[in-house]
Amino acid sequence: MMKQVMTLMAALCGVLPAQGPQQGPVVVSPEVHADRRVTFRILAPKAGEAALFGDWMKVGTTVPMAKGAGGVWSVTVGPLEPSIYIYHLVVDGVTMADPVNPRVKLRARTSASLLELKGEPPTIWDARDVPHGSVEINWAKSKVLGGETRSFWVYTPPGYEKSGGQRYPVLYLFHGSNDTAGGWVLAGQANYILDNLLAEKKAVPMIVVMPFGHAVPFGSPREVQAKNTALYEEYVLGEVLPFVEAKYRVKKDRASRAIAGLSMGGGQTMAIAFRHPEMFSDVGAFSAAIGPDAMERVPAVAKNPFRTLWFACGKDDGLIKRSEELDALLKKAGVAHTYKATEGAHTYTVWRKYLAEFAPLLFRN
Amino acid sequence: MMKQVMTLMAALCGVLPAQGPQQGPVVVSPEVHADRRVTFRILAPKAGEAALFGDWMKVGTTVPMAKGAGGVWSVTVGPLEPSIYIYHLVVDGVTMADPVNPRVKLRARTSASLLELKGEPPTIWDARDVPHGSVEINWAKSKVLGGETRSFWVYTPPGYEKSGGQRYPVLYLFHGSNDTAGGWVLAGQANYILDNLLAEKKAVPMIVVMPFGHAVPFGSPREVQAKNTALYEEYVLGEVLPFVEAKYRVKKDRASRAIAGLSMGGGQTMAIAFRHPEMFSDVGAFSAAIGPDAMERVPAVAKNPFRTLWFACGKDDGLIKRSEELDALLKKAGVAHTYKATEGAHTYTVWRKYLAEFAPLLFRN
Repeated sequence: MMKQVMTLMAALCGVLPAQGPQQGPVVVSPEVHADRRVTFRILAPKAGEAALFGDWMKVGTTVPMAKGAGGVWSVTVGPLEPSIYIYHLVVDGVTMADPVNPRVKLRARTSASLLELKGEPPTIWDARDVPHGSVEINWAKSKVLGGETRSFWVYTPPGYEKSGGQRYPVLYLFHGSNDTAGGWVLAGQANYILDNLLAEKKAVPMIVVMPFGHAVPFGSPREVQAKNTALYEEYVLGEVLPFVEAKYRVKKDRASRAIAGLSMGGGQTMAIAFRHPEMFSDVGAFSAAIGPDAMERVPAVAKNPFRTLWFACGKDDGLIKRSEELDALLKKAGVAHTYKATEGAHTYTVWRKYLAEFAPLLFRN
Repeated sequence: MMKQVMTLMAALCGVLPAQGPQQGPVVVSPEVHADRRVTFRILAPKAGEAALFGDWMKVGTTVPMAKGAGGVWSVTVGPLEPSIYIYHLVVDGVTMADPVNPRVKLRARTSASLLELKGEPPTIWDARDVPHGSVEINWAKSKVLGGETRSFWVYTPPGYEKSGGQRYPVLYLFHGSNDTAGGWVLAGQANYILDNLLAEKKAVPMIVVMPFGHAVPFGSPREVQAKNTALYEEYVLGEVLPFVEAKYRVKKDRASRAIAGLSMGGGQTMAIAFRHPEMFSDVGAFSAAIGPDAMERVPAVAKNPFRTLWFACGKDDGLIKRSEELDALLKKAGVAHTYKATEGAHTYTVWRKYLAEFAPLLFRN
């Protein structure tokens, strides 16, 4: 009987009686409803106000949470489209991850959580019943970065370990500002995107290398931050690429190297690829923070064009002006490329779709 | 001049003027001082109280934080011994990870952060300048666990990818309650421990397999939770072990299989190994939540003893009685084993040392 009451309580209000060492009610958050509305909750009996921000919302806005029984604040939003969203709570001015949600959005600084609404049928970034590749975390001491031991994540496609002498092309894939080497996997689900594309024979089996993009600490003063791209280039080309080409069974020619990134990582992609068009054949930039260094290198790219040069940005993204500017410069210089202005803002909801569209273009002759 | 003022401010009080989109001062937390004292800070201008709990402290206690300029609360503790500690903040009754510390302690539920104090010289769990192994995340759909796609983490030693036909022994290594498949890497730094032992030739090169130990959701009602160990055994022996033995170059005989775990994972280790003494040669349990199922199987183990049976518990750990009880039962049954009561409580600070002591014992004939 007690069990039934508890189950009913949980169903009715998402709050379970305390179990074990926790104090107060056990809060369920986030709770995804059948109609894809979502309820967020936080136990904060002493708080004067609580609010939610999720990356499906307009930046700078929040929705207020209402205080309920037992000091549990809640708000229900949606219905939301299937995606993996990033959100945080603000309680009396303290911005925090959802304390009871195990899916933390790992970041370089600041806290947030992940909310997943699976698609029905499963989307291109959902785990489908297909062969799965793996993601290997590698650690290496970096001379370029002051002797620090850094990790980078490497996707290998299904069957890599059994494919004997086969060699694979490589995509270097960069995350954005305030993210980590794991971002493209943990929030981007790039591994599932590749698995699903491969299962549908829509992409070439490839290795995907994901380094940590903050060569100088995130949040450094402007004059330090200004060195980030150049240092990162030195790290990626001088340390990560040789490590990958020594350890993994990869092809080492220009035609078998692609480079792409989102936001800051899109800017890094453009900077590195445009300085080294002899090294990469395929280039992608998603909602990219394109810098003047890339813009200035358009004439060099015109002399040594890429096989694929693809970039896109959401219409609700403040960075779209830079993509438009680059598009115009490339057109003027007669450089073949694809530029798309799409629906959406500066979120992984957009970037997952971009990767699913970009990856099938790679390593095609 | 402005830069110098900012640097001075940061040095004096750990608070930097706001940069970019953040509001209010940029808080530095945790800040490790040269003498191994540590300052924790949180920006919470409206809070009435704030406190810190760290796992170097007695469970159930907290230390209060004091409100300072700009609404930044802080407390300085220590000096602390070199380790990686787990801590959380409590602000007006809300328990949370440190919002500005990127090193989140990933958990099955509830939030916390990691604090690392590196050793000088580096400890056995620090990143040393030695060859590093890798950790590969594998995903597989689990029939036993209702079709859920689960990940498990696999350490391969340095040079694994170049070692041709060589086959390796395997250690199955389990985390504790409210942890994740990544716990032994992200908080335990098991990869660095193995790297360092291998560099000193104190351990045999081995594969380490780290599954997710919550077969039923963490925090399930007691009657559901009671099924966890049996379901987990079915998952590990029926799905993870065959996957590992098919994918990795491992030896598949009893002499080449070891099993170990901490807390809940130590209980799972004892339950699985004591039911299947024909499958594993070396068994380790760290601060284990040993269940009656293991105690009852002591006579079976007496008939088919392990090559190594090693367990330990901290004297300040409430679970030590179970280890003492098992020690007595094994002695009475004449089963060779090693049991140690050590300094320490129920923390990774203890478990890292146990792994560093246990791993060298493995796969010795």
